[in-house]
Amino acid sequence: MDILVIGIAGGTGSGKTTLMNNIMAQFEGMVTVLSHDNYYKRHDELTFEERSGLNYDEPDAIETSLMVEHLKQLRQGRAIDCPVYDFTRHNRSDETIHLEPKPVIIVEGILIFENEPLRNLMDIRLFVDTDADVRLCRRIKRDVNKRGRTLESVLAQYQATVKPMHEKYVEPSKKYANLVIPEGGKNMVALEMILGRIQKHLDGASAV
Amino acid sequence: MDILVIGIAGGTGSGKTTLMNNIMAQFEGMVTVLSHDNYYKRHDELTFEERSGLNYDEPDAIETSLMVEHLKQLRQGRAIDCPVYDFTRHNRSDETIHLEPKPVIIVEGILIFENEPLRNLMDIRLFVDTDADVRLCRRIKRDVNKRGRTLESVLAQYQATVKPMHEKYVEPSKKYANLVIPEGGKNMVALEMILGRIQKHLDGASAV
Repeated sequence: MDILVIGIAGGTGSGKTTLMNNIMAQFEGMVTVLSHDNYYKRHDELTFEERSGLNYDEPDAIETSLMVEHLKQLRQGRAIDCPVYDFTRHNRSDETIHLEPKPVIIVEGILIFENEPLRNLMDIRLFVDTDADVRLCRRIKRDVNKRGRTLESVLAQYQATVKPMHEKYVEPSKKYANLVIPEGGKNMVALEMILGRIQKHLDGASAV
Repeated sequence: MDILVIGIAGGTGSGKTTLMNNIMAQFEGMVTVLSHDNYYKRHDELTFEERSGLNYDEPDAIETSLMVEHLKQLRQGRAIDCPVYDFTRHNRSDETIHLEPKPVIIVEGILIFENEPLRNLMDIRLFVDTDADVRLCRRIKRDVNKRGRTLESVLAQYQATVKPMHEKYVEPSKKYANLVIPEGGKNMVALEMILGRIQKHLDGASAV
């Protein structure tokens, strides 16, 4: 199987998920998604409070080496069992998700371009670029409504780690992108171009 | 005729011309190019020294209203006579170039996204994004080797107007781009996607 690996990076709340969902809606059943978030390290040795205080926005918080191995296996056409992270418990869960390789693999996360072995496995690197204040608005809504956090904890975490780590790691990794997409999710001109590129890949793959 | 208008913006030396040449090489005879540079205002009333001292990097230096009219005419399938700017004399020449409409029109220049009526005429807006120091290297080479300027005059102009006007007008206009292309000319992943989009337009146009 000929596999196209697309990396989608960008800061928290930038619109990575919307872009990804738009791609998946167009190519149902043809896309496997690998989320960097699911590879947060396990910390059974810490209490909930200790885990809440960790810096989740630096590269060392994530077991990227495992994700690199999994992506290599998927590219070789082999299935993997992907870990699952539980955001309400701040820890890796005991579940895994069985992922079969598909003709298109999307790798997504804020830090996926920061890691050289990981980014070298991508055929197309997309960076969704959205103003910091717009991203903060979205993050507040998501973390309060969907992840059961308090507003105070979201804002405290944003200022303590999310913002400084964005500026230290995420923003500089933009230079590894092949394409930067302003306002990712709502950018229909960019979406059409990306869908066209994927369609071309699928046409070629089915022609062989 | 169904016409696709592609805007290519980006700072001086960013790689706009390389990207444009790569597109034209692929679609020979199908592309009309409209350069903002050719619409620099005529200043017969000034001496060469006075013209040399003008700020060529601000929107007011260019007769954008004429370019908007010409682009509208091309989009409607009508030919135009485009002015020609003489960079060695710092003035509009007496020549014009007769431009026929083609299925693809490329509009290029550092300030083309800054002007709202102009950018609203574009179907796809591409911004070539390259580090300022790399751009300066290229500008020095181009202006000294191809435009007959002295190194001193190039550096003086860069610091006096090119850099401040870039920061004032060009960089902020990046937000109007549909796609930002890091390292434009050498970015083959982006080029392939753009060529695919144009090919799709041409296929559709010929199918009608």
